[in-house]
Amino acid sequence: MTSEDKKFNSIPQIPSFIYLCKWLVICLLIGALAGSASAALLYSLHWATDYREAHKWIIALLPIGGFIVGLVYHYYGSSVVKGNNQLLEEFHSPEHIIPFRMAPLVLFGTVMTHLFGGSAGREGSAVQMGGAIADQFTKWFKLNKDDRKIIIIIGVSAGFASVFGTPLAGAVFALEVMVLGRMRYDALLASVLGAVVADYVCKLWPIHHTHYGVDLVPDITPLTFLYAIIAGILFGLGGMFFSKATHFFTTLFKTKVKYPPLRPVIGGVVIALAVYAIGTTKYIGLGVPTIVDAFNMPLNWYDFALKLLFTSFTLGAGYKGGEVTPLFYIGATLGNALVWFLPLPTELLAGMGFVAVFAAATNTPIACTLMAIELFGAKGAVYFGIACVVAYMFSGHSGIYSSQIVGSPKH
Amino acid sequence: MTSEDKKFNSIPQIPSFIYLCKWLVICLLIGALAGSASAALLYSLHWATDYREAHKWIIALLPIGGFIVGLVYHYYGSSVVKGNNQLLEEFHSPEHIIPFRMAPLVLFGTVMTHLFGGSAGREGSAVQMGGAIADQFTKWFKLNKDDRKIIIIIGVSAGFASVFGTPLAGAVFALEVMVLGRMRYDALLASVLGAVVADYVCKLWPIHHTHYGVDLVPDITPLTFLYAIIAGILFGLGGMFFSKATHFFTTLFKTKVKYPPLRPVIGGVVIALAVYAIGTTKYIGLGVPTIVDAFNMPLNWYDFALKLLFTSFTLGAGYKGGEVTPLFYIGATLGNALVWFLPLPTELLAGMGFVAVFAAATNTPIACTLMAIELFGAKGAVYFGIACVVAYMFSGHSGIYSSQIVGSPKH
Repeated sequence: MTSEDKKFNSIPQIPSFIYLCKWLVICLLIGALAGSASAALLYSLHWATDYREAHKWIIALLPIGGFIVGLVYHYYGSSVVKGNNQLLEEFHSPEHIIPFRMAPLVLFGTVMTHLFGGSAGREGSAVQMGGAIADQFTKWFKLNKDDRKIIIIIGVSAGFASVFGTPLAGAVFALEVMVLGRMRYDALLASVLGAVVADYVCKLWPIHHTHYGVDLVPDITPLTFLYAIIAGILFGLGGMFFSKATHFFTTLFKTKVKYPPLRPVIGGVVIALAVYAIGTTKYIGLGVPTIVDAFNMPLNWYDFALKLLFTSFTLGAGYKGGEVTPLFYIGATLGNALVWFLPLPTELLAGMGFVAVFAAATNTPIACTLMAIELFGAKGAVYFGIACVVAYMFSGHSGIYSSQIVGSPKH
Repeated sequence: MTSEDKKFNSIPQIPSFIYLCKWLVICLLIGALAGSASAALLYSLHWATDYREAHKWIIALLPIGGFIVGLVYHYYGSSVVKGNNQLLEEFHSPEHIIPFRMAPLVLFGTVMTHLFGGSAGREGSAVQMGGAIADQFTKWFKLNKDDRKIIIIIGVSAGFASVFGTPLAGAVFALEVMVLGRMRYDALLASVLGAVVADYVCKLWPIHHTHYGVDLVPDITPLTFLYAIIAGILFGLGGMFFSKATHFFTTLFKTKVKYPPLRPVIGGVVIALAVYAIGTTKYIGLGVPTIVDAFNMPLNWYDFALKLLFTSFTLGAGYKGGEVTPLFYIGATLGNALVWFLPLPTELLAGMGFVAVFAAATNTPIACTLMAIELFGAKGAVYFGIACVVAYMFSGHSGIYSSQIVGSPKH
């Protein structure tokens, strides 16, 4: 402690400067690679989605696509099958460097899921590619245990920031997600630098991020304050039901189907039949068009429930992707439905739901508030903040990441 | 633990709902009172500043004004003289309810400081009024130790949010400031609710907050990224010099002048003579006009240094107020000066400095990033984030609040 104190009290800027230079170099490397990986993911998903929507018969092949993904993961991917939770576990109790194969495998699995019509997201893939790329530097640069934790955070931050085009949200997400109810400040600088670099590099590629706008924002009054709190409670319940449904289907498939590659086959049959029965593809894939609609026009009140079901079932069956874009979908459509009894503008409720259901399911209220500001602008900042924090409070103590440690209870 | 777990696993929303209702009621009460107290402060400071600028001879009486403040604090205010640090200390090791007299005394002391021409801020006063008002509820509602910590956070959050009109920044500031390098999530909900209510109530009174705008924001490129980092380093050094200067003058006055009421007398003579010698009042008071100018026109490169000297000397001599508005001034004028060798728009550099020097001196990078977004809009969010985080990293481990505990080193 004394030598530490001395170091701080003499000229603390010298170690700070060395620290900055070291992490700046690492962040430039990881950011450039993770940002490019996210661009490849976005580009591939764009292609897969377009192809599927133009050739809807391909959805009938979902069980086969699922079988391939299942086989590949079963025989080549058992060391990386835990996905996001693996990153969290390595952060908490470091054992093995994340195998690089996590990156190509999750990219392949995600594109297959979306091409054949599973319902999933993409942030899981971006985060896993970022994490797997970043962790290779641990090996190459022979970094110690503490540095490795920062490396994993940079990977998560860079992947998240670049896939959504939201650098500040990505930086804070990586710090918030590791431990429920605590934020890691020792990695703050590296997380921000990695996020900004990755976002910049990703945008150099010919991809585009969807733009949303929330401009119609009423002044805060006692009534709108109350509405925002009520909406936050419902978004929190939505996030909790999503977590519970995903865990439920995952456990169901694991206990009922012993041979892992068969799980997506059975799941794929059910999903393909369900899509055929209801006659629409709006509940599969990323669902970006429906998310955009949720800001502008009235939708079915039950859209959020069907998307919740489709996604938790898809992921439970072992398909790859992520949860976040479906959470955006669930939140935005739930917000859209709330307009029937909460007199707030549709676009505001959709925007609040977009981020708050996600905040509830991942326990990252501050990252989600920042994300709302980065995506929708600062006008509704207070509404977004209330919705995210209240939703966080009402989603219980278990989110979608089962390896998230509870650092501080919510109350 | 087991009974806790059970509670969480059954229906966690029931305790969450009770918790929400309880804190909503408390936040409505504290928020309304703290918001009104901030309005009274803003109104009084407006009056005091106008009167001083119209009757500049009053600055000659600064030593007498200081003597009165010194006497009042010496004989009636010894239990509340530690100010913001007292709130932090009670948070960390609760001993005595904050005496209510902290609120009227700091209001009186701050108005006197500004009326007679000391250089100080106002957030200290708002935060101390908020904290003192809030802590009375500990007594009235017979709250336990954990609840009291939340009460103190609400007081700080409500005071800060309402005096600057920035609810999200206020909410996060109160959570960030208590422990360096850690954010308290268990008080998140209460902090946000208290901040929003206080800000709303404050704006019901006939006061106004200064508006700033940062619209000219270049895209992030490798060069602008580097400029933002360099600016952040300089803002961090600015924040550190301010902390060190304040501690230096405080210690100097304490060791050289044994009778406390004499300290502001001697300090007042020096300040009044200095104002007379340099022939301008732009370095005393809040300095809001100069802050506004810093966004729009070239200023003297040394403005930040003189303001730093005037404010640390004023506060070291025992005058009341706060540090934050002078930190805004120092940051905005330093940013304005940087335009000579960092090719970024003046308004962007001024805005980055405005929040980053403050982030560096108080160790609250996320609150300051949110503050920038609330005050200047979301366009420059990434620049503000980089500046605040880098400045935080470069300000060393001691800020202006000597009672702030180091929870996690910066690197």
